[in-house]
This record gives sequence, structure tokens and C-alpha cells, in this order.
Amino acid sequence: MVRQERALRTREALIESAATVFDRDGFSVASLAAISSLAGVSNGALHFHFSNKAGVADAVEQAASERLERLVAAHGEAVGSALQMLVDTSHRLARRLGEDVVLRAGFELSRDHVRQGGRDLYRQWHAWVEEALKRAEGEGALNGIAPEQVASSVVAATTGFEVLGARDPKWLSRRTVTRFWQLLLPQLATPPVLGSLVAAGGPPGDHARRTPGGSPAARAGEEDD
Amino acid sequence: MVRQERALRTREALIESAATVFDRDGFSVASLAAISSLAGVSNGALHFHFSNKAGVADAVEQAASERLERLVAAHGEAVGSALQMLVDTSHRLARRLGEDVVLRAGFELSRDHVRQGGRDLYRQWHAWVEEALKRAEGEGALNGIAPEQVASSVVAATTGFEVLGARDPKWLSRRTVTRFWQLLLPQLATPPVLGSLVAAGGPPGDHARRTPGGSPAARAGEEDD
Repeated sequence: MVRQERALRTREALIESAATVFDRDGFSVASLAAISSLAGVSNGALHFHFSNKAGVADAVEQAASERLERLVAAHGEAVGSALQMLVDTSHRLARRLGEDVVLRAGFELSRDHVRQGGRDLYRQWHAWVEEALKRAEGEGALNGIAPEQVASSVVAATTGFEVLGARDPKWLSRRTVTRFWQLLLPQLATPPVLGSLVAAGGPPGDHARRTPGGSPAARAGEEDD
Repeated sequence: MVRQERALRTREALIESAATVFDRDGFSVASLAAISSLAGVSNGALHFHFSNKAGVADAVEQAASERLERLVAAHGEAVGSALQMLVDTSHRLARRLGEDVVLRAGFELSRDHVRQGGRDLYRQWHAWVEEALKRAEGEGALNGIAPEQVASSVVAATTGFEVLGARDPKWLSRRTVTRFWQLLLPQLATPPVLGSLVAAGGPPGDHARRTPGGSPAARAGEEDD
């Protein structure tokens, strides 16, 4: 049991190290030696868990996919509005991409066209965004616009934040994401719903760390700068 | 003179081949042998023009940067509205990304964080978008929204189209880009300007190839599906 726990912990350390090395060097350049060295384990220990670099990448992508799943599920049923849930989740995704190297490397691996990956985090995110917008439509919150139409623009913008944010963190800031929602929400939401939406993200309890620009007062349609 | 012309043509063929190999394999995996072989020239001929792979990549990025420059300048002063110019140019960029491997590889190289590139096509595109929006503001076409605020959302979305379009061409389709503008323009433009804007792109003369969804009738705020 103790041995199993240790093995599990080594595997997790290797996934974290691999994500760091993939994020820094890219999949093609990353070496297994660099990954095991960063995790503080031998090459033999790495090969006990993974047969090759593709196997390590699959494990990183799988771990990232599970984190994305938890991230989108975190909102739960606490907030009534699916549109607010979508806004809040996009903020949470942007923040986590800046903090969580496994999540970030997972997206990077999903768009590495040399690799034939198993999971596809963009597809997973797109499916969730579309689902959230369909829920908003069911709530009568959408202003006569088809969920699929909105989903492609939301996924494109968040993909842009992710890609550009890998080189400059300001693309993942609350301000950047808020600006996007301030532009989009007035066209998206029915007038009664719009008044209750917070482009900068939901109630404080849901966001442990809030920037000054993300106060609940920064509502859709207003500028916070 | 004939020899110079031939050298220039060889250099251009090498840039085209290099873009194809970078686009297919990524910068890290791409080999000089694959590039010269695809161009139908010897390794020696390649080394006459470029000292190493980084030099080839710089040349591809430089060529892509010049194409982007021509692409954004193509509109000229013919169209009075800077907002319509921005919409049209985003459509043209999406279409060219699907057709022009040098342009596509240039963007890919600009976001390859292993490479320390000279040019940065995202920065070039961002600067142009912001300039166009400032011009729109000067024309009184912006609905009280700061050009910088809009620029980051436009650049994020077009970056998303570019990145996702590398794996699935539908992200670069006129329909996808039109949907984005249909969502954005009503919040962006003053009411009198909005009525004259075409989210699907400007007059037919400006777009040789138009999809059925891109008819001038598909105006901002209307859905074309």
C-alpha cells in the first residue's frame, strides 16, 4: 500500500515535470532525461510508468483534461444563470492557465500537430461552452441567437487568450477577459438578464482571488478602465 | 543578371518549401534536407542562401510579415469606413491563412516559444487592428468604446481562428468570421454606422471568392444560418 502510494506520487511528479518541460521546450524538443531529472527520479523510474515520450504526453493531456473537467464543473448548480456560469468559468480558465502548468501544457499538446494525441482539450472546451449556451437558451437568456453561433466566437477568443497568454500574461488577465464579455454580452443576452450579468465574473465567494478591476460593479456594458 | 534572377527564384522556392515543412512538422522537427529536397535543390544551394534552420525560419517569417503588410494595405483608401475595412481585412486574413502556407507558417513560427524569432506577426496584426479602430474612432463610428478595448478582443478571436483553423478549416470560413462580427458590431458601432456595415465582408469587387453565406445581405445583427 505504501509502495503503491509512492508509485502514484512519483507518477504525479513525472506528469508535473513533463508538463513543465513540454511547456518550456515543446513536445518535439523535450527529452525524457530532462523530465526525469526535473522530477528527481531515475530514467528507470520514468520507464516504469511510461514507455516513451508519446506516453508521457498522453498522460499530461489526460491530467489536463481531468483538471479542465473539474474546472468547468466547479461552478456547480449554485448560480442560476448559465450565462453567468459561462462568464465565470472563462475567467477561471484564464486564471488557471496562468497558474497551472499541466493545464497549459495540455492545451499546447492538443494543438501540436506533429503529435497524434488522444484527447483534444479544445474540443472538450468547445463542447462545454456550447452546452452552457444551450442551457442559457433554455433559460430564455439568449437574445434569439443560436448557441452554436455564439460558441464559435467564445471558443476562438478564449483560444486566443490562451495562445497569446503563453507569451504575455496580460492576455490572461481579468481585465482582458472582462473586456471581451463587455463587448459580447449586450448582443447576447435578453435585456432583463443583461442587467444581472457581471462581465468581470460572479460573486466574490466563487473567486478567491479578485483583482481590483474585477469588482462586481464592473457590469456588462460598462468599461472598467 | 540572369544568374541573379535564378538565385532569387531559388531563394523564393526555398522559402515556400520551408514554410510547407515548418507547417507540417513544426520548427523543431523540420530538417534542412527535407526543405531543400522539396524545393528540388541541393543542400549546397540551400546553404548558399541560409546559414542554418533559424535563418530559414527568419526568412519565412519575414516573407509572411511582408504578405501580412500587403494584405492589410490591400484595402487602400477605397472604402470610407475604417470599421468595414477592419471587417473585410479580417475575412481576407482568414481566407489567406487557409490558402497561403507562407503566411500560415509565419504565424506558427511567431508563436513557437522554442524559437527566438525576429518578427512577431501577432504584434504586427495587433498594431494594425488598433490603428484601424483608432481611425474608426476618428470617424465617429465607435460607440464610446476605447479602441484598445476592442482590439484585444478582435486579436484574440482572430488568433483563435488561426490556431484552430490549422486543424479544421471551418474555423477560417467566411461563416465563422461573419458570426463573430455579427455579435461584436452592434455593440461596437454607432447606430447610423451599424446600418451600413456588412459583417460578411465588403463589396464583391473586393472579394473575388465569396461563399453563399457571405452575400452582402448578411448584415450585422442578422443571422445567416
